Amino acid sequence: MTLTGVSLIAGKPSSSKGATFRATNPQTGEPLDPEFTSCSAGDVDQAARAAAEAFAAYSRTSARDRARFLRYIADNLDAGVAELAARAQLETALPPARLQGEVQRTSNQMRLFAEVVEEGSWVGARIDTALPDRKPLPRPDLRSMLRPIGPVAVFGASNFPIAFSVAGGDTASALAAGNPVIVKAHPAHPGTSEIAGRIVQRSVEECGLPPGVFSLLFDAGIEAGKILVQHPEIKAAGFTGSHAGGRALMDLAAQRPDPIPCFTEMSSTNPVFILPGALRDRGAQIATGLHGSFTLGAGQFCTKPGLVFVPQQEHADPLLAELRRLAGSSAGFHLLTAGIASSFQRELEARTQRPGIQSTVAEPQPGTCAASAALLEVDINNFRKSPDLSREIFGPATLVIRYQQREAMLEAAQALEGHLTATVLGNPDELGEYRDLLDILERKVGRVILNGYPTGVEVSHAMVHGGPSPATSDARFTSVGSRAILRFARPLCWQGFPESALPEELHDSNPLGILRMINGQTTRDPVRS
Amino acid sequence: MTLTGVSLIAGKPSSSKGATFRATNPQTGEPLDPEFTSCSAGDVDQAARAAAEAFAAYSRTSARDRARFLRYIADNLDAGVAELAARAQLETALPPARLQGEVQRTSNQMRLFAEVVEEGSWVGARIDTALPDRKPLPRPDLRSMLRPIGPVAVFGASNFPIAFSVAGGDTASALAAGNPVIVKAHPAHPGTSEIAGRIVQRSVEECGLPPGVFSLLFDAGIEAGKILVQHPEIKAAGFTGSHAGGRALMDLAAQRPDPIPCFTEMSSTNPVFILPGALRDRGAQIATGLHGSFTLGAGQFCTKPGLVFVPQQEHADPLLAELRRLAGSSAGFHLLTAGIASSFQRELEARTQRPGIQSTVAEPQPGTCAASAALLEVDINNFRKSPDLSREIFGPATLVIRYQQREAMLEAAQALEGHLTATVLGNPDELGEYRDLLDILERKVGRVILNGYPTGVEVSHAMVHGGPSPATSDARFTSVGSRAILRFARPLCWQGFPESALPEELHDSNPLGILRMINGQTTRDPVRS
Repeated sequence: MTLTGVSLIAGKPSSSKGATFRATNPQTGEPLDPEFTSCSAGDVDQAARAAAEAFAAYSRTSARDRARFLRYIADNLDAGVAELAARAQLETALPPARLQGEVQRTSNQMRLFAEVVEEGSWVGARIDTALPDRKPLPRPDLRSMLRPIGPVAVFGASNFPIAFSVAGGDTASALAAGNPVIVKAHPAHPGTSEIAGRIVQRSVEECGLPPGVFSLLFDAGIEAGKILVQHPEIKAAGFTGSHAGGRALMDLAAQRPDPIPCFTEMSSTNPVFILPGALRDRGAQIATGLHGSFTLGAGQFCTKPGLVFVPQQEHADPLLAELRRLAGSSAGFHLLTAGIASSFQRELEARTQRPGIQSTVAEPQPGTCAASAALLEVDINNFRKSPDLSREIFGPATLVIRYQQREAMLEAAQALEGHLTATVLGNPDELGEYRDLLDILERKVGRVILNGYPTGVEVSHAMVHGGPSPATSDARFTSVGSRAILRFARPLCWQGFPESALPEELHDSNPLGILRMINGQTTRDPVRS
Repeated sequence: MTLTGVSLIAGKPSSSKGATFRATNPQTGEPLDPEFTSCSAGDVDQAARAAAEAFAAYSRTSARDRARFLRYIADNLDAGVAELAARAQLETALPPARLQGEVQRTSNQMRLFAEVVEEGSWVGARIDTALPDRKPLPRPDLRSMLRPIGPVAVFGASNFPIAFSVAGGDTASALAAGNPVIVKAHPAHPGTSEIAGRIVQRSVEECGLPPGVFSLLFDAGIEAGKILVQHPEIKAAGFTGSHAGGRALMDLAAQRPDPIPCFTEMSSTNPVFILPGALRDRGAQIATGLHGSFTLGAGQFCTKPGLVFVPQQEHADPLLAELRRLAGSSAGFHLLTAGIASSFQRELEARTQRPGIQSTVAEPQPGTCAASAALLEVDINNFRKSPDLSREIFGPATLVIRYQQREAMLEAAQALEGHLTATVLGNPDELGEYRDLLDILERKVGRVILNGYPTGVEVSHAMVHGGPSPATSDARFTSVGSRAILRFARPLCWQGFPESALPEELHDSNPLGILRMINGQTTRDPVRS
C-alpha cells in the first residue's frame, strides 16, 4: 500500500492543507516518509456529520451483517499483517514478533465482538408482558434492550499501535454495538494508522455500508481531537493515554451542553505485594518475573508493575540483590517517542534526587528515544511522605517499597489511588492471613491478580481492564474484553408496540434465540401468551 | 412518631445548630411544625466517613442479608403508610390516595430489588477457565462480577416525596447493590423525609448493620449537597429535579480530582405525536386521555406530556375544541411549593406573550401555591422559530403544535433534544407509514409509547426511565426498574485466585445457582474441570 498521508473522511481522502508532520524512527531518530497532513476543522465536521447520517442505517443493520463486517476487517487485518507490523516496527521500535502478535490480537478482538454480536444476548433484552386486568391499574406491555449510542470518537494510543489504535478495541466494540467510528490517529504512528484505516475503509465498502461508518483523522497537534469530542454529533469517546491528555478530554466532554460518556484509560502504577511465604520460597523466581514484567515492551504497558511492596526480612535481601542485578544488566530500550523518553528521564531523575531513594540504572544508551531500565528502592516511611512516588513512570522502571510493619503496608495500600490492577504474590496458605489486604485492593482496582504479573491482558469475556480514578474515567466499564461493548450502548424501552414495529430481539417467538428476561425470568424460550 | 427536625448521622441525631426552616402547607400557605435544622459541614463529613467505614462490611454482606434488610425497610414503610401519607399530604398537597399508593410503590420497589439481589444473576458473573497449555501463552483463570461502587449520595425529589425521596428508587438500588447511602432530604417535605429516614435507620439497626449504611441530611439551602457530592468518600450520586440543579451537581461531580458518576434526571417535555388515523377515529378519547395525563399530579411528573403534535385537518378542530374545553374547565391545583407555582406562572406568561401563541387557561385560583391548567397552541412554523418552546414547564400545562406538512413535523421531531419519553397515538396500520418518525424518536428518548400516555412509570424489569441529554445526565442507565441497580456497581476481575478467596458467585459449583457466563456460554451449570 502506498501511503498517502491524508485523512480519510467517510471514504474519501481529505484535500485539506493543514500543518504537516512525519513519524520518527525511534531507533535512528530519522524522520519517516511520507509527510502527513493535519486535517481541518471542516474535515472533522464533515466526518461527524457523515457519521450521524450513517448512524441511522448502520444502527439498524442486523447482527449478522455487523458480524460479517467485523470479520471482513479481521480478515483484511490478517492479510495485512506483514505490512502493518513492518511499518509499526519503523514507527515504534517495538519488536517484530510482538507487533505481528498484536495484529493477531487485533483481528481476534474483531472476531470476538463478531461472535458476541452474532450470539446476540449482549443486548440484555427484557420483556414484561401486559397485565390488562391488574388492579388498580393495568400494566402495559414493556420491552427493552440495548441500542447503539451514536457516533463514537476513538483516540489511538501510542503504546499499542494496532490493538489500541485505529482498528483496536475501542473501534471494535463501538462498531460491534452499531455505532459509526471516527478515529483520531496517534501522531507517533501515522503510517500504521493509515494502513489500518484503509483496511477498515475497504471493509466498509466491501460490506456495502454507508461510508460515514468510519473516518480517520490525522493531526500534528490536539486541535482536531478537541473539536471532535465537542462536536454535537459525537455521542461518546474512547481514549488511552496520559493522565493529562485523558483528563483534558474528560473535561471537554463533561463541559458540553450535552455531556457525553468519555472513557479514558489514563495512568496506573499496578502495585504488587510480595507476601513473606512467597518471598521465602521463590524470591529468585519472583525477581525474574517482576523484571520481565516491568521491562516488557520497554515498560510501556498500562499494566506495568510500578510499585512493589517487599517485607523487610532475611529473604528480602537476595530478592533485591537479584532485582538490582537484572535491572542493572538490562539491555537498552528505545521508547516510542523522544517526548516519552525525555519524560521518562526527567521523572527518573526527579525521583533519584529524593532523600532515601536508592537507584540501580542500567548502562546509558545513546539516541533521543533511548532509555535504560531502572530499579528504585525506598523505605515505606519515606514512600508515605511523598505520595507522588506512587504516580506512574511510563517506561522501564519500578519502585520497590520495603516495609517492616505489616500495619504500615496496609496503611500504604489504603492510601493508594485507583489502579487498573493490583497483584499479590503469596502462598495459598497466606491468603487468609492477608484477607485485609485483599479487601483493600479489591476496592482500589479493576483486576486483582494472584501469583501472576499484571502485564498481558487477556481479551476474553471475564477480563476487566478498568478501575477507579485516576486509572480510568469510569470504573463501571472495561476497555478490554467482550464487556467493552457495553460502553457504547444504551437501553431503549418500547411500550405497547406490535411486533411489526419492534426489533427482532423483542419478538414473542425469539427468532434470534437469544437469552431474554421475560417477567423477571431469564430464558431462551418464546413469550407464552 | 414525634418529629425531631434534625439530621440523622449514621444512626445518631445531629446536634448542629445550622439555619432552621419549616415545611409549608401548599394548600394554606401556613408553615408546618416542627422547625428543621440545617446540618453542618462536619455532619456531612461525618456521614461520609461513617459510610466509607460501613462500606467495608456492608459491601461484603450476603445477598440474603441484603434482601432481608430491604424487606425490613419495605415492611416498616408499609407499617408507616398512614403516617407517611398524612404528613406528605400536609407538605405537598398531593391527594391522599396518590400518596398511599406512593408508599406502596416504594415498599414494592424495595421488594423488587430484594428479589433481584436474592436471585443474584444481576452481578453478571463471568468465568474464563485457565488454558495452561495454550500457545504461545497460557491463559490464566479469570473470574469477574459486579461489585458495589461505594457510598452513594441521593438527593430527594420534590415531586415524589416518598418514591423518589429518602427511601425511594435511588436509595433502594444503591443499597441493593451493596452501597451505603446518604440522603440529602428535599427541603419541601422534611417531615415526610424524617419519617422515611427513621424507618430506614430502624431497619439498619434491626438487621444489625453498621450505622454508617444510612444517613439523612437536612439543609435549608444547597451547601450540604455541594459538600456531599464533592466529598472524597462519595463514589456516585443520584438526583431527580430541575435542569439547573442537576447540571450544577453534574459539574461538581465532573470537576472533582476523581470524577464520579452523577445520575441526574432533569427535564423532559415528552412529545406526543397524534397520527391522522387516530385523530379521525378517536379524537375525543385522545383529548380526555391527554388532559388527564398533563394535569395528573398537577402536571408535576417528569413524564408529563408537554408537547403535542397535531396534523391540521378536519378532525383536528373537534379534538382541539375538546382539549380547550377540558383545560378551561379544569379544577384548580396547588403546586408543591410557592417557588414552583411562581415559576409556572412566569413560564406560562412568557409563552402567552409570544406572537402566534393561543392559550386557554382555567379560572385563576387564590393562594401562593395555586395554579390553573393551561393549554397553549402554536403553529409549527412559529414553534420552530422558538426552540425554547420545547422546554419543560413544570406544572399543569401543555403545548399543542399544529402542522400542515408531514415534512415539517419530521423536521421538528429531528430538532428535538433528548427526552425521557415520546408517545405516538396512531392506528396499527399507520405505523409502517410513520416508520421514519419512529426511527427519529427512538434516537431521542429512553422510552417510546404507542397508544398510551407517558405518565405512569411501571417499576419493573423492562422499564427504562432515562434518556439522552438534557433529560438525564447519562442515557446508558435507568433510574426506575430493576436495571437501576447497574448504576451503582462496577466489574471486578480476579485472576488466578483459589475459591477460598473468591466470592460465592464465582465458585466452581455455583452454590447460589445464578446465571453465569462460562467461557462465553451463559448457564446455571457448575464449572466443569
